Amino acid sequence: MSKLVIVGTVAFDAIETPFGKTDKILGGAATYIGLSASNFGVDAAAVSVVGGDFPQEYLDLLSDRNVNVDGVEIVKDGKTFFWSGKYHNDMNSRDTLVTELNVLETFNPVVPNAYKDAEIVMLGNLHPLVQLGVLEQMTTKPKLVILDTMDFWMNIALDDLKHVISKVDVITINDEEARQLSGEYSLVNAAKKIHSMGPKYVVIKKGEHGALLFHNDDMFYAPALPLAEVFDPTGAGDTFAGGFAGYLAKTEDLSFENMKNAVIYGSTLASFCVEKFGTERMVNLTQEDIKNRLKQFKALTQFNIQS
Amino acid sequence: MSKLVIVGTVAFDAIETPFGKTDKILGGAATYIGLSASNFGVDAAAVSVVGGDFPQEYLDLLSDRNVNVDGVEIVKDGKTFFWSGKYHNDMNSRDTLVTELNVLETFNPVVPNAYKDAEIVMLGNLHPLVQLGVLEQMTTKPKLVILDTMDFWMNIALDDLKHVISKVDVITINDEEARQLSGEYSLVNAAKKIHSMGPKYVVIKKGEHGALLFHNDDMFYAPALPLAEVFDPTGAGDTFAGGFAGYLAKTEDLSFENMKNAVIYGSTLASFCVEKFGTERMVNLTQEDIKNRLKQFKALTQFNIQS
Repeated sequence: MSKLVIVGTVAFDAIETPFGKTDKILGGAATYIGLSASNFGVDAAAVSVVGGDFPQEYLDLLSDRNVNVDGVEIVKDGKTFFWSGKYHNDMNSRDTLVTELNVLETFNPVVPNAYKDAEIVMLGNLHPLVQLGVLEQMTTKPKLVILDTMDFWMNIALDDLKHVISKVDVITINDEEARQLSGEYSLVNAAKKIHSMGPKYVVIKKGEHGALLFHNDDMFYAPALPLAEVFDPTGAGDTFAGGFAGYLAKTEDLSFENMKNAVIYGSTLASFCVEKFGTERMVNLTQEDIKNRLKQFKALTQFNIQS
Repeated sequence: MSKLVIVGTVAFDAIETPFGKTDKILGGAATYIGLSASNFGVDAAAVSVVGGDFPQEYLDLLSDRNVNVDGVEIVKDGKTFFWSGKYHNDMNSRDTLVTELNVLETFNPVVPNAYKDAEIVMLGNLHPLVQLGVLEQMTTKPKLVILDTMDFWMNIALDDLKHVISKVDVITINDEEARQLSGEYSLVNAAKKIHSMGPKYVVIKKGEHGALLFHNDDMFYAPALPLAEVFDPTGAGDTFAGGFAGYLAKTEDLSFENMKNAVIYGSTLASFCVEKFGTERMVNLTQEDIKNRLKQFKALTQFNIQS
């Protein structure tokens, strides 16, 4: 069992979808990644920041699942990062209604001493300099560094982003962002260009169309589970990344063959995330649920051609 | 080995893509289906119509691959169906520039006597009444009838289309058309509605995002092979259908498990079709090519989770 460090936002989200809307609920990249990774019983630590307005019960929710929150700074007189968004009818696109950075504006991440030798580091979506700051605190070189990012940082901090990209082993990014970062329309060519920026493994997330894992000339594809209703896509990408990282931390096998399995577990966990608002489905997930969903993924994708 | 009857257009196409443009070249649904199915060495017959302007060498090209053309009527003083289209830069959408129905306007399909007892009938994209006319000529009830159609017929002949849909076992249709036909956005719900119209098996084609096979509550997903360049998507859907039908005709196993394999072969063959203009890649395909490509599909999709 490897130790896993997770950096990312811990936030309030307010979400509107065609199925309804929420008040401020628990959200943030590190939250979704932590909840997802916790299904593998790993020893994980979240590195993040919240304000004095953040309920202790939300932090307890992570601790209870073996996600250490010593690295979640509480700024007593500050306010927690707040995001609000509205999804369109097709659920594939959304408008951001509100972004209040609040305590994120001056965030200096601190990795707890006990996790500075973690074998796996998951850099969730945050300013590239914060991601880099976490990497620089590791006293032992991690066996695997995974980076998630988004177009926002490409638009305002591309040089910093490219610098941190050059230092990671795996990047997870969505299809449009892969095209923007590489200048290539074909995802095969986009992955090649991104390889050349540093990461040996490139994961391109295609939402309802699944995810592709690239490594040199090898490719692997995991579909998203086709669902009758996608209730709320918020956090699905982070849940995917958390499942990917958590499975690798549990199995300690960083081969391409095992990364295929990690991608399948990422998709499996993401398929739960979208079934309810926010983290609601993720906090009520059982090992039995995951086992059964994994069976559905096998039935969905595995075939037996005698050739 | 089952006998296979294929009905569909045999046509001239003129195609423009970001990579170049063609003069009038060989095209049509029955052509692509026949070329694709011929890779399984099946005893197939094409039922279609061409004008006096259609080169004998194109008909020979089908005959040489064991696709009987006795059912391809030649209207000496008529002109062959002509379609011209231009693909946009993303290759996922296209504009139709010219549609000249010509001999198709008065086409009465005639199934050759030797194929009226064929076990499998592939109704390629054509007016639903032509598709129905072929079904009505079968003297023995086919074991499997597969229907391909498009939005054009939903717009101008919906009642006729629903009538023929009620008589088939498998329908292949693209995602937008499935949504139009069912009035459901979710493909899972769309497939359920289409099931209730008659077909026990629903195949939803998602272009570069692969294809889904639905049967009651079972689902199977085959990705499209991610390619560095899609040169010309014309005929990919028909090539998919031809591979699906051809594999089932060869194996004579109509179980859901074997239909999974048929979907994989359909995707495998379609992945060749888009590599060159028109039928160019399909007429130069070897068994070795197919075997190697199938290996790529396995590497792309198969995993081994010890749970």
